[in-house]
Amino acid sequence: MLDNWNDGATKAAVVDFVQRVTTERGPDFVEPASRIAVFDNDGTLWCEKPMYIQLDFLIRRFAQQAVDDPSLRELQPYKAAAEGDLRWFGEAVTKHYQGDDSDVKPLVAAVLSAHEAITVDEHAGRVHAFFRDAKHPTLGRHYRSCGYRPMIELLRYLEANGFTNYIVSGGGRDFMRPITGMLYGIPPERVVGSSVGLIFRDGALFTTAQPEFLDDGPMKPVRLWSRIGRRPIFAAGNSNGDIEMLEYSQGLRLLIRHDDDEREFAYVAGAERALERAAGAGWTVVSVKRDWANVFAD
Amino acid sequence: MLDNWNDGATKAAVVDFVQRVTTERGPDFVEPASRIAVFDNDGTLWCEKPMYIQLDFLIRRFAQQAVDDPSLRELQPYKAAAEGDLRWFGEAVTKHYQGDDSDVKPLVAAVLSAHEAITVDEHAGRVHAFFRDAKHPTLGRHYRSCGYRPMIELLRYLEANGFTNYIVSGGGRDFMRPITGMLYGIPPERVVGSSVGLIFRDGALFTTAQPEFLDDGPMKPVRLWSRIGRRPIFAAGNSNGDIEMLEYSQGLRLLIRHDDDEREFAYVAGAERALERAAGAGWTVVSVKRDWANVFAD
Repeated sequence: MLDNWNDGATKAAVVDFVQRVTTERGPDFVEPASRIAVFDNDGTLWCEKPMYIQLDFLIRRFAQQAVDDPSLRELQPYKAAAEGDLRWFGEAVTKHYQGDDSDVKPLVAAVLSAHEAITVDEHAGRVHAFFRDAKHPTLGRHYRSCGYRPMIELLRYLEANGFTNYIVSGGGRDFMRPITGMLYGIPPERVVGSSVGLIFRDGALFTTAQPEFLDDGPMKPVRLWSRIGRRPIFAAGNSNGDIEMLEYSQGLRLLIRHDDDEREFAYVAGAERALERAAGAGWTVVSVKRDWANVFAD
Repeated sequence: MLDNWNDGATKAAVVDFVQRVTTERGPDFVEPASRIAVFDNDGTLWCEKPMYIQLDFLIRRFAQQAVDDPSLRELQPYKAAAEGDLRWFGEAVTKHYQGDDSDVKPLVAAVLSAHEAITVDEHAGRVHAFFRDAKHPTLGRHYRSCGYRPMIELLRYLEANGFTNYIVSGGGRDFMRPITGMLYGIPPERVVGSSVGLIFRDGALFTTAQPEFLDDGPMKPVRLWSRIGRRPIFAAGNSNGDIEMLEYSQGLRLLIRHDDDEREFAYVAGAERALERAAGAGWTVVSVKRDWANVFAD
């Protein structure tokens, strides 16, 4: 196994760790029930560039809303979505970091209300429809094939060694759930993520436009405890938002470094503090360029 | 199996349902991954009379807080706890339902702050210490032996038929988790319940005095979706707080009716609407007196 990992220190660290915790009567043995592994999703299990896959899902929804309701066409973010002006979305975030929330406020409101007042099953249907057709804008592959092949292989390797894998992502819980089984072999009950509030009415669960969970940064350990109730012994992330999850986890900590602009994307923005922390804390840094024999499945 | 259930319509309904959903190529077959069963805890899996087991845990904590901090001794609920005045707690709730929150307000504040600012591991230690020693006030058995034997047997029966069991309780998530493995064979990741907020600090998770989840009534389906992401096909409850969970679930719905004051307790208070709803919706009512050959393990 781990054929999509190049031989070297990173692969050796993973294999060594797994051998130690699974060696019965060894000093580092961990019983199977406590072999909990947690994985960030965006940038850790699947590609997050040039934009989050969920953002593409949302922008397509905004464009559809502008078609359905012409009064939205002159309002942001619907206007930008309808016109395919992706730059507007990036600039809204840039302005936010410069202290100007004039664009990010209507964007957040639009995100929260994009799938308002439908049942969780209807929402899952929209997600399925998106992944059936939508393609990555530059990689020339469907989004459903944008999972990192070595990481999926790692999930199987851990499973084969008695681990239970969870996703703990800042991405939408109910955006990921319909497809994590197909992509990663991870069932819905093991997907932790952000969500709007739900309401029970007429025997069904409906979405609202109220924020409920934002699974990022220091909320990641809180939310993983809420869902799992155990301290992970294996954790993988790639960004500043994963620092606390990696700190809370014990055992092996992986931080993916995106340094391969030929096969994927090279970037450190948003991961500066995580990379610094990894060096200080002895986390294992995975170099996409060096460590992965293949990035995606064929 | 199901030896602790008397032969009759209730047991037959359970066995028939399980046979139908597990019969491959049958019209009602359900794949194992979707065989989700949810169980309320208080009054469904273990005894909730004369008071919630968690309330006893809390009252003992209040009494200890009054010992540690004499300034609390003249304040409620610490005074009542220190003096063993259990009636005060019942009356606080009665007054609440009569529109007078003068006692219930300090009680709720005391509940929320009872285990404030300790790590989740320290909290689990307090729970373990409680269950090691604490006894039920009238049944003459340890609280850890107050689980209903037929229900525990039912959990095993469902498991043996490919079901995955969850607890979905209004009780405290982190109060139940340390002992549900021992009592019910249900691991922490499958315990859904109420909780205070947690905060991540210095590499650890600490309790706060802020309410976070209250898993009761219409929140039960919301919270079980949040945690499981699947619609249950088997649900069991006993009170008005379980109505929405039973409504949201499909397949077999059990409502425990506590009608045996010889072997346990007979009461309908707090279950009036649930019993009415069960009759109208065709839920299967379990009579403790009629259906259970034994109530507790020896």
